[in-house]
Parts: sequence; C-alpha cells; structure tokens
Amino acid sequence: MRTEAENQTAPVTRVVDLVEAAGRRKASTVVIAGGDRPDDLRLVESARDHGIVDRILLVGDRGRIARAVEEVGIDIPAGDVIAAEGYDAVAAATVEVLRAGGVDILLKGNMSTPILNRTMLPLAVRPTASLVTVFDAAPIADGRLMLMTDAGVTTVCTLERLDDMITNAVDVAREVLGMERPRVAVLSANEKQITSLPSTKLGLELARRGRPDAWVCGPLSFDLATDPGSVAVKGLPDIPNAERVAGQADILVCPGLDAANILYKVITALSKYGQASLAGITMGFDVPYIIISRADTMETRLASIALCSLWAQRAAGGTAGPAGSGDPPAGDQS
Amino acid sequence: MRTEAENQTAPVTRVVDLVEAAGRRKASTVVIAGGDRPDDLRLVESARDHGIVDRILLVGDRGRIARAVEEVGIDIPAGDVIAAEGYDAVAAATVEVLRAGGVDILLKGNMSTPILNRTMLPLAVRPTASLVTVFDAAPIADGRLMLMTDAGVTTVCTLERLDDMITNAVDVAREVLGMERPRVAVLSANEKQITSLPSTKLGLELARRGRPDAWVCGPLSFDLATDPGSVAVKGLPDIPNAERVAGQADILVCPGLDAANILYKVITALSKYGQASLAGITMGFDVPYIIISRADTMETRLASIALCSLWAQRAAGGTAGPAGSGDPPAGDQS
Repeated sequence: MRTEAENQTAPVTRVVDLVEAAGRRKASTVVIAGGDRPDDLRLVESARDHGIVDRILLVGDRGRIARAVEEVGIDIPAGDVIAAEGYDAVAAATVEVLRAGGVDILLKGNMSTPILNRTMLPLAVRPTASLVTVFDAAPIADGRLMLMTDAGVTTVCTLERLDDMITNAVDVAREVLGMERPRVAVLSANEKQITSLPSTKLGLELARRGRPDAWVCGPLSFDLATDPGSVAVKGLPDIPNAERVAGQADILVCPGLDAANILYKVITALSKYGQASLAGITMGFDVPYIIISRADTMETRLASIALCSLWAQRAAGGTAGPAGSGDPPAGDQS
Repeated sequence: MRTEAENQTAPVTRVVDLVEAAGRRKASTVVIAGGDRPDDLRLVESARDHGIVDRILLVGDRGRIARAVEEVGIDIPAGDVIAAEGYDAVAAATVEVLRAGGVDILLKGNMSTPILNRTMLPLAVRPTASLVTVFDAAPIADGRLMLMTDAGVTTVCTLERLDDMITNAVDVAREVLGMERPRVAVLSANEKQITSLPSTKLGLELARRGRPDAWVCGPLSFDLATDPGSVAVKGLPDIPNAERVAGQADILVCPGLDAANILYKVITALSKYGQASLAGITMGFDVPYIIISRADTMETRLASIALCSLWAQRAAGGTAGPAGSGDPPAGDQS
C-alpha cells in the first residue's frame, strides 16, 4: 500500500486518474447553485460514491429540490438545503454559503451563468478568471495528458490576460498534475512575426517574458506544439524555448476564446468516440468552479469534480494572485 | 457503366472519392514551382497514374531537376522543364508559364511561399484568396464530407473578407462536391451577442446578409454547427437559418486564421490516426493552387491535386469574382 506522502505525489497521467487520485485525498464539500436537477444530483452522488465528495449543499427552490432528491434517492440532510427562489436569490444565497467557508467546490446547476458569475465577482482571488481544461486525446500528442486554455471564460486575450491564463494553467499543472515545470506553447497560425496576425506578436512577447515555473514558447502552430513528428520534418522554429517545448507541450494556450472553444469542442467530439477524455476547472474565484455543459458526458462531469477537488485539497496553499475582477464567462460551455 | 453526364454529377461523399472523381474527368496539366524535390515528383507521378494529371511542367534549377527526375524514374520531356535559378526567378518563370495558358494546377515545390505568392498576386481573379479544406473526420459530424476555411491564407478576417471566404468555399462545395445549396456555419465561441467577442457580431451580420447560393447561420459554436445531438440537448439558437444549418453544417467558417489553423491541424492529426482525410485548395488565383505542407501525408497531397483538378475541369466556368488582390498566405501550412 502507498503511504500518504506517495499518494500526494503520485503523478496523474490520464484524465481517468483524476477520479482515483481525488478519491484518495480528503473529500470535498460541494455546493450546487440551483441544485434541483436530478442529473446534477446523480453526478454529485457518484462523486460521493468515489470518495471525492462527502457533503453536498443544495441552494434553490425547496420544493423542486425535494422532488429531485426524492427522484434520485440521494441522502441530503435538511440542513444542507438552502432555500432561495429565482436566479438572483439563488446566486446571492450561494455566495453567502461560500463566504461562510468550508465549501470546496462550486457547481453551477439550474442557474444562469452570467447571473451567477456577476454575483461571484467579489469573491475573485486572481486577476483573471479562466477555464483550464485537462485532456488526453489519442490523436493529439499520442494521448499524453495535456492542458488547454481558455475555452469558456475570458474574451479579451491581451498580453496580460494571456499571462494570467498561463499562471492559472501552470498552477493546475504543477499542483494537481505534478508537472514540475510545465512546457507551455502559445499557439498561433504561424511561427514567424506577421503584422496582421496579432497572435504571433503576443506569443513571442510571452515567450520572451518567460517565467520561473514554466517553459514558455511561442508563437507555435498546433502541430509543432504537440507533434514530435512535425518538429522532425519542419525543424525547430527560431523562437525562445523551442527546444524545450516544441513537440512536447504540456499546456496549449489558445490565442483567443474562439480558437480555444473550437479546440475544446473537437476534443469533446473525440470523447464521444472514445478517443479523448477531458475535465474542466474554472480558476480565479475563491473556490474552483464547474460550469457543466448540458452536452458534456457524465464521465467529463465526474472528472471535472475530481479535478476541482484535487485543486481544493492540494497540499500547498496560498498560490492565489492579487484580488481583482475577472471577465464574466462568455464562451458557450452550455 | 455510367454515362458521361452521370459521371459529371456523381456526388462526392468522402475525400477519397475526390481521387476517383478526378480520374474520371479530363486530366490536368500541373506546373511545379521549384520542381526539384523527388517527393513532389512521386506525388505528381502518382496523380498521373490515377489519370488526374497528364502533363507535368517543372520550373527550377535544371541540374537539380534532372537529378530528381532520374532518382524517381519519372518521364518528363525536355521541353517541359523550364530552367530558372533562385526563388525570385523560379516564381517569375512559373507565372510566365501560367500566363501562357494551358496549365490547370499550380503546385508549390521547393519554393518560398511568400515570394511565390507575391509574384502570383497579379494573377488574382477573386477579391480574397483563401484556403478551402475539404475533410471527413469520424468524430466530426459522423464523418460526413465537410469544408472548412481559412486555415492558411487570409489573416484579416473582416466582414467582407469572411464573406469572400464563404464565396470561395460555397463555390467549391457547389461546383466540385455537388452540394446544391450548402449550409454554412460561421463559428464563434457563443451564439449570443457579446460585445467583447467580435465573432458573435460578424457571424450574425453574415447570417443576416444571406446569399442565394447557400444557407448562412451564425454565430454558431462548433458543436451546435456539427452535432445534431448537441442541438437536441441545447435546442436551436435564436439566430437566422438555425433550423437549416445547426447540427448539419456543410461549411465551417472559422472566425480567424488562428482558430482555423488549429482546427486544420487537429484534423491532420486525426488523419494520421486513420480517423480523418483532408484535401486543400487555395482559391483566388487564376489557377487553383496547392501549398503542400511538408508534414502532410501523401494521401492528403494526392487528394489535394484531385480537388484542384476537379475545380479546374468543372463543367461550369466563369464563377470568378472581380479581379483584386488577396492577402499573401500567412498561416503555417509548411
């Protein structure tokens, strides 16, 4: 049997490992904003079965919650149901619960994303909120575990925003996935500087800026970032850290929400063909945050809870950046 | 046996059909700018074996061409080798060959893409040059034949440029693939109008503008464009032509070169896993134009020649738009 210390550092090499790894850690308390949908209850009950979650708080309409709890046959103490009616009230009550402390994960249930996000803003602990997606996909990097960002939150991808997104992704890679110094590729359509293609400038600036906790390389096309075969054919581009990152990136930073969302949705399509798995965590708020898509599979949802739980229960704390306000989520994750 | 008329209209339903369909049409004359690479000669010889190409013109260094021809064992009459040394001279000589007429397809060989494009610009016959990619991919739209654009040419995706790209893609869909009225999805991360996400505005404007030869819908997320299952779960978005296009798009218009290039490269990765096939044609110049990637498979290259040959030999002519200058290719297709 593994010791506790070994469990803490056991590397996660596949998305499915997240569920097992989270089950070995301290279980989390989850709150569902709008906790009246049977599917969401089945999900958190599954997470409880896996030892990832121990306590479930439900905020929402008391009658509808009672009917959903009854339908699913889940055990929720009366004191863990917080009554509130209407999206605004549910969002406000959820934030009250979070402020009271002791909650590890927020799950958006039957709730308007913009309203919940607006209400959450004062709880932001990082300058930029962004979605970090952990995935493995057979045709991408031979199924290695990778991260990508940002498929659903920040619309304005300035240099500083992208730098913040890298921080969020690097922290997940280091503290949850055990990657000591992740290799970050800032994606673009071209490795050369092209005036009319801003991503080429942003990529190079981010790579030149560098950082102590990661190797950053850019601008890098998707195949040169992920595929050693393409590097062998095309050679290393003349950009900083290419020898460290090209063909072996751990983190793919998309140069805009549209690009990231398309990549995310393709990985989702692959997952439905059994060719990929993925999990998402919204970074930037006081608690990790799951915006579950109605089109996501149960496997993706459970892995996302596991990812958030691992973040919440990580050994090291205090990695949050200075307080500030993130953009409201904009991408279609619904 | 099929009649000639039936052959002309037989629908192409898979990328591999392009090779067979092109072999049934009149064979094309191809010119290679920088025709001294054995791999390129093997490719055009394979196209000749398939009945897609009958004549091959090689522009470049006479000595190197002779050695490559010797190595591959291909039969090229001496008169079909046009001697030129250096990228500028090769590009100029290639354009001379094109101006003289009788050439159906241009293939970039051992040649600088920017120099060739710059020299080609006076031959532009459409206001915008763009790469149209025809693909099928098992996990995307259940492997239906689709088109995407623009993964490699136009960097500045204004409303007019996107409209021109749609024209280019629609013409390929109609005249090569036999799609009578293609369903065009202008992709974005969100279906709602978000001020900080310009693709949502562009998508809606293009959808509202409409066109007689296609159904245009936007802004549409990737899954709502391609996956009927997502439409069933999420419902039809409240945007023009959603009922015609959502879940069944034929053409995916990416809202920028970075997004398109990432999608293109993912499809390329899928193709190496036997999960996708693709072919590309650069539209906008006087002859269809193939910028072959060094990382592309032989299958992709051959299908691209077939696609270009079908375009060149299509029954209907005169679909070219007004003359003008396209952007020089910028995306990393190399």
